[in-house]
Amino acid sequence: MSSARLAAGLEYDGGRYHGWQAQPGSPSVQSAVNQALSRVADHEVRCMGAGRTDAGVHAVEQVAHFDTRAERSMRDWLLGANTYLPADINLLWVRQVGPGFHARHSATARAYAYLVLNRAVRSALERNRAWLIRDRLDANAMHRAAQALLGEHDFSTFRAAHCQAKSPVRRIHSIQVRRTGERVWITCRASGFLQRMVRNIAGSLALIGRGRQPPEWLSEILEARKRQAAGPAAPAQGLYLRGIAYPEAALPRRRESQAASIIPLD
Amino acid sequence: MSSARLAAGLEYDGGRYHGWQAQPGSPSVQSAVNQALSRVADHEVRCMGAGRTDAGVHAVEQVAHFDTRAERSMRDWLLGANTYLPADINLLWVRQVGPGFHARHSATARAYAYLVLNRAVRSALERNRAWLIRDRLDANAMHRAAQALLGEHDFSTFRAAHCQAKSPVRRIHSIQVRRTGERVWITCRASGFLQRMVRNIAGSLALIGRGRQPPEWLSEILEARKRQAAGPAAPAQGLYLRGIAYPEAALPRRRESQAASIIPLD
Repeated sequence: MSSARLAAGLEYDGGRYHGWQAQPGSPSVQSAVNQALSRVADHEVRCMGAGRTDAGVHAVEQVAHFDTRAERSMRDWLLGANTYLPADINLLWVRQVGPGFHARHSATARAYAYLVLNRAVRSALERNRAWLIRDRLDANAMHRAAQALLGEHDFSTFRAAHCQAKSPVRRIHSIQVRRTGERVWITCRASGFLQRMVRNIAGSLALIGRGRQPPEWLSEILEARKRQAAGPAAPAQGLYLRGIAYPEAALPRRRESQAASIIPLD
Repeated sequence: MSSARLAAGLEYDGGRYHGWQAQPGSPSVQSAVNQALSRVADHEVRCMGAGRTDAGVHAVEQVAHFDTRAERSMRDWLLGANTYLPADINLLWVRQVGPGFHARHSATARAYAYLVLNRAVRSALERNRAWLIRDRLDANAMHRAAQALLGEHDFSTFRAAHCQAKSPVRRIHSIQVRRTGERVWITCRASGFLQRMVRNIAGSLALIGRGRQPPEWLSEILEARKRQAAGPAAPAQGLYLRGIAYPEAALPRRRESQAASIIPLD
């Protein structure tokens, strides 16, 4: 039997997991997905994800690839894996891809969204899904400030101390800060992200939104190229991996996932 | 020390509870709220809610009243109770009201919203927050059909077998069915609701949305005035108590709660 490479879209609530990456002794999304796919395949499957989301971070649409000798319809992979997965993880779609496809290396862009719940009291329905900020945020000031990050930069300022990326240079294609009622959404699309980059940017933008720093401060700290220059990182629970972009030839465009309905597009 | 009557707005995720109503041996939202308020008051407090939500039903804004001899600022009631409440319940506001105010009897209208997630695969992020329907729903047909329920009617068709209301007559002020992407929201405002009324209406509307019944069928079953005429009830997890209306003199208008941002207004 020959081997085939498949790609899958994945949604998850990261609350119970130590992040995407499989680690001995800690529950991870990747391990749960490997187990479910292995049961469908009837042989051990190891999937590779496009983005290594941290503990507590959610995904509206993560993408992973895996190799298998099993012959199943795409529908059987999807429904079978969802039967075995816990309720807080599910596959969105499964597609066959070429042997050269790699969920991480073939990706051309990633999109994340960060949700701030901006109100005086906490929210039972939004617990573990947003960062509660009680002070009124100036979303327009945050949006203006964020535009300084557009384009290619050394993002060392917004990089976690333990980030293992070889280069701190990334290209931000778009970044938006928008208020809808009590919610402030920070959406960002880039060639790639350093570890904690979105949370570090969100944390610094919150200082601007609260009026503790002027909008110009963001470009000053970007130029400083050191983590100590930035504000504290925003908590993981407000962060959503929204989607991964691939060349059309590598992975044909999929049906719009729920991203469209819960998170404003940027 | 004299006694005062206070009203409070409450948000909760009903997933872990056997409904609003305190019952021996089962966790209820009301018991959890009573316990938290009693700790703040330093004497036993018993609150009375405007709507008796069933097991698994959520509230964006429930209203309850309680009497107390304790003298605390409204801010201390709010922050104190939220400190003692579990993460899936929180107070939204606390106000002093007149001694004649009654959360249930003073209410002039109630609003509920029902969320259907209309897509082919389940959703980790929406689990226990919506009713997953895989067949494509015709939300326009559902909306047209629902208009037959407007006004004052005998709603026996949409009443639970164990409903204890004296009269089956209620007045529906507005009912809307709207699609936003993969979400179909059914929103309804009425003088009051019989037990399971919104879930029974939503279940019947879903049959129309799936094309299994024509839109005219809804007025036919309404006129039949018997439960057996209707479709099966929609599951509890998609139902949200959105708000309770009072005469301005009884309870001055509060700041708009998060309802505005997560649920379309009707």
